[in-house]
Amino acid sequence: MKQDLDALMQQHAIDYLWVSGPAQHNSNMVYFTGGCHVTNADLFYIPGQTPVLLHGMMERDEAAKTGYRLISYSNYPTQNFSGLAGNDPLEISALRYKQILEDVGITKGTVMLYGMREFGPFFALISRLQELLPEVTFVGDPLDKIMVEARATKSPEEIERIRRMGVITTSVVQKTRDLLTSHKVVDETLIKPDGQPLTIGDVKAKINLWIAEAGAENPEGTIFAIGRDGAVPHSSGTPSDPIKLGQAIVYDIFPCEAGGGYFHDFTRTWCLGYAPEEVQKAYDQVKEVYDTVVSELEVGVNPARYQARTCELFEAMGHETIRQNPKIERGYIHGLGHGVGLDVHEKPWTGMEKDPTNILRVGSVMTIEPGLYYPDKGFGIRLEDTWYVKPDHTFAKIVDFPMDLVLPMKGG
Amino acid sequence: MKQDLDALMQQHAIDYLWVSGPAQHNSNMVYFTGGCHVTNADLFYIPGQTPVLLHGMMERDEAAKTGYRLISYSNYPTQNFSGLAGNDPLEISALRYKQILEDVGITKGTVMLYGMREFGPFFALISRLQELLPEVTFVGDPLDKIMVEARATKSPEEIERIRRMGVITTSVVQKTRDLLTSHKVVDETLIKPDGQPLTIGDVKAKINLWIAEAGAENPEGTIFAIGRDGAVPHSSGTPSDPIKLGQAIVYDIFPCEAGGGYFHDFTRTWCLGYAPEEVQKAYDQVKEVYDTVVSELEVGVNPARYQARTCELFEAMGHETIRQNPKIERGYIHGLGHGVGLDVHEKPWTGMEKDPTNILRVGSVMTIEPGLYYPDKGFGIRLEDTWYVKPDHTFAKIVDFPMDLVLPMKGG
Repeated sequence: MKQDLDALMQQHAIDYLWVSGPAQHNSNMVYFTGGCHVTNADLFYIPGQTPVLLHGMMERDEAAKTGYRLISYSNYPTQNFSGLAGNDPLEISALRYKQILEDVGITKGTVMLYGMREFGPFFALISRLQELLPEVTFVGDPLDKIMVEARATKSPEEIERIRRMGVITTSVVQKTRDLLTSHKVVDETLIKPDGQPLTIGDVKAKINLWIAEAGAENPEGTIFAIGRDGAVPHSSGTPSDPIKLGQAIVYDIFPCEAGGGYFHDFTRTWCLGYAPEEVQKAYDQVKEVYDTVVSELEVGVNPARYQARTCELFEAMGHETIRQNPKIERGYIHGLGHGVGLDVHEKPWTGMEKDPTNILRVGSVMTIEPGLYYPDKGFGIRLEDTWYVKPDHTFAKIVDFPMDLVLPMKGG
Repeated sequence: MKQDLDALMQQHAIDYLWVSGPAQHNSNMVYFTGGCHVTNADLFYIPGQTPVLLHGMMERDEAAKTGYRLISYSNYPTQNFSGLAGNDPLEISALRYKQILEDVGITKGTVMLYGMREFGPFFALISRLQELLPEVTFVGDPLDKIMVEARATKSPEEIERIRRMGVITTSVVQKTRDLLTSHKVVDETLIKPDGQPLTIGDVKAKINLWIAEAGAENPEGTIFAIGRDGAVPHSSGTPSDPIKLGQAIVYDIFPCEAGGGYFHDFTRTWCLGYAPEEVQKAYDQVKEVYDTVVSELEVGVNPARYQARTCELFEAMGHETIRQNPKIERGYIHGLGHGVGLDVHEKPWTGMEKDPTNILRVGSVMTIEPGLYYPDKGFGIRLEDTWYVKPDHTFAKIVDFPMDLVLPMKGG
C-alpha cells in the first residue's frame, strides 16, 4: 500500500522516485495522481514531502486536482537553454531537466525511474542527464521492489474500486448471456432478426458498447473466441465467425476504469444449447481444479505453490502441463493467475517461486484461472475469478457470477 | 512513408530498429504490425529483411497476422539462463535478450530503440545488455529521425484510415449537436426529460458511447468544456456542470481506431441559442485567422511560419500571444497545430522552426487550430480541422463539418 513506499525506498536505498509520461493509461502515474487528464507530466516523489507534479500550462486545472506541488513546464522555456546547448535538441532537453531536478531538490542520491512512455527519447535524455549529474544515479529495476511492491497489496478503497469494475464486468457478462440465449437458431447457428448469422464481431461490438455505457474502458480488448480460437488462450476471436450451438466459447473480459484506472479480470466458458461430452468432461475437470485450488488458498504462501498444485491435479487427470514442457500447445499451458490492480497483470505472480516477496498477504488481489486447451479437438476451457485477501486472512471473490457451462437457448 | 525507412537508416547510420512493448496503443509497433492483439512483443527491423516478431506462445495466431518472421519467447525459457545468471532476474533477462539478439543477427552496429512501455525495467535491461554486447550501441533520440520521419508523411492508405476516423468523429459531433439542440430549456439551462439539468458528464457519457458504437476508441479522452473551463485549453470539462445557453462550449474530440490505430483530431466551439457579443467577436476573429492561415498553406514550408503568422494576426487584433510571453494564460496561448497519425500529436510541428526536416510535404497530415482564451471573461474559443497535402501539392480537409458558433435550439 502507498504508506509502505517510504520504508521500501529506505530498505532498497532509493532516495527518489521519478514517474514520467501521461497521467492516464500509465499505472505508476495513476497510482499517485488518481487519473487526472494530464497528457504529459513528471512526478517526483521524495519521502516525507508532498509529491511534485510538472505539467503543461494548459493542463493546470487538471493537475491541480492532485493536490500536489505544481510546477508548469512553461517555467523552463527551451529558449533559456538553447544558447548553452548549441541548439542541440537533446542537449536543450537535458539541460532543462537538470535545472528541473535541481529545483526539485534532486542533486545527489539514487533516482528510481518509472513511467509508461516511448522508450527511445527518454533513454537518450536519461543517458545524457546521467553525465550532467554525476552525483545522481538513475536506475530502473525489472523486478521493481518499490512501486510494484507497494501496489501489490491494496487498500480497502482500492479493493472497492476493483469491485466496482467487477460489478460492471459481470453486468456486461450478464447482458452478453441474455443477448446470446435470446437469439433464434437455424441449423445450430444463431440468427439475427435480419436473417444473418450472429457473429463474434457482432457480440464484441455489443460488449464494447456496454463497457462504454458503464463508463469503463477495455484498452486491452476482450477475448470472445469460439471453438479452436478458444483453444489458443490469447487469440481474441475471429470477427466473422458465426456463433453455433455446442461449441465452447471462451469469454475473458478485463475492463478498467476510464482513463486507465483499476481493472477487473474474469473468464467464463459457455456452450450454447448443449455441450459435447468431451467439452463437458474437460469443463468439469477445470472446475474441479478451480475448486480444489481455491479451497487451499492461504495467506503467507507464494502463489507459485498453487501453480505447481494445478499442474499436479491436471497431470493426475491425464493432461499434459506447462511444467513438463514450457513449449506445449495442448493441455494446461499457462500460469494459474496474476495480481490485478492498475495493471491487468501485476504482482503477485504464480511463476515467481524464488522471490521471497511474492507472497499472498492481506490486500492481495489475484486471479485464479485454470484452463485446458485442445486446438486439435477444437475447444478450449478457462474459468477465472478475481480473488482478494480480507483483513481476517480469508479469501473472497471480488464479485460472484454463475459458473454454468451450458446456456439454455430461450429464443424462438 | 514506410518505404523511406531504409534510406533514413542509412543516412543516420542506424543499422537496426528494435521496437518493443505491446502491439496495441504503441504507435511505432502498430506502424509495423497493423494492430494485432499481442500483449507483449519485440520487433526487429533489419533493412532488406522481413521484420522479426518475438511473441508469447499463446498469441501466435495474432502474431501470425503480421506475416513477419515469428519467434516465440518460449524458445528462450528463463531456466536456460538462470544458472549462468546466478538466479538474478535482471541478469537472466539480459542473457536471454543477448541470445535473442544474436539469433536475430544483431551482434554489432547501432540499434535505435522504440516502444511505448514501462521505462524502468527496460532501462535496466538495456543498460546491462550494453555491457554484454560491447560491439552493439543502443541509442534513442528525442527528435527521432527514422520512425518519426517515415511516419510524418502518410501513404494514401493511411490517409484513408484517418479519413474513416474523420467520418466517425464528425458523425459523433453531429449526434452531439442533435442531442444538445433537442433539449428543453428552463431558465437558460438544458433540462432532461426527468427534469434534471443536462450536465457535461451526461454529454461526455454519450460521446463515449457513440465512439464505442462506431468501433473506435478515445484513449486520450474528449474535451467538452463550457465557460471558463473552455478557456483552459486542456481542461477536459467538469462533469457536474449544467449546460446553459449563451456559454461557449469547446468540443475537442480525437478518437482513434480500436486498439490504438490512426487518430483524427477536430474541434468546434458552440454557443447554444445565442452568443454574447464578446464571444461572437472573438469567434469571428478566430475564424478569420483560421481562414487566412489556411489560404496561405504551402508545400515545402516549415509550419512554424504559420504559427508566427497566427501570432501576427492575433496581435494585430489586439490580443496577447505566446510568442510575446510563453507564460501567458489569456489570448492566443498555444501552438497552431500538429501532425496527426498513429499518435494524436506527431510531426510536423508548428514550433520547430529550426528543424530543416519539419516541412509540409505530400502526405503531411496536420491540424490547424487557432484559438483565443479568456478565463477572466469565462470563455475560450478554438476551431480545428485536420488537413492533408494531396499529391498535386494542394491542401484539403480530411473531412468537412459546418463551423457555426450558434446552434439554434429546437427543443420544446
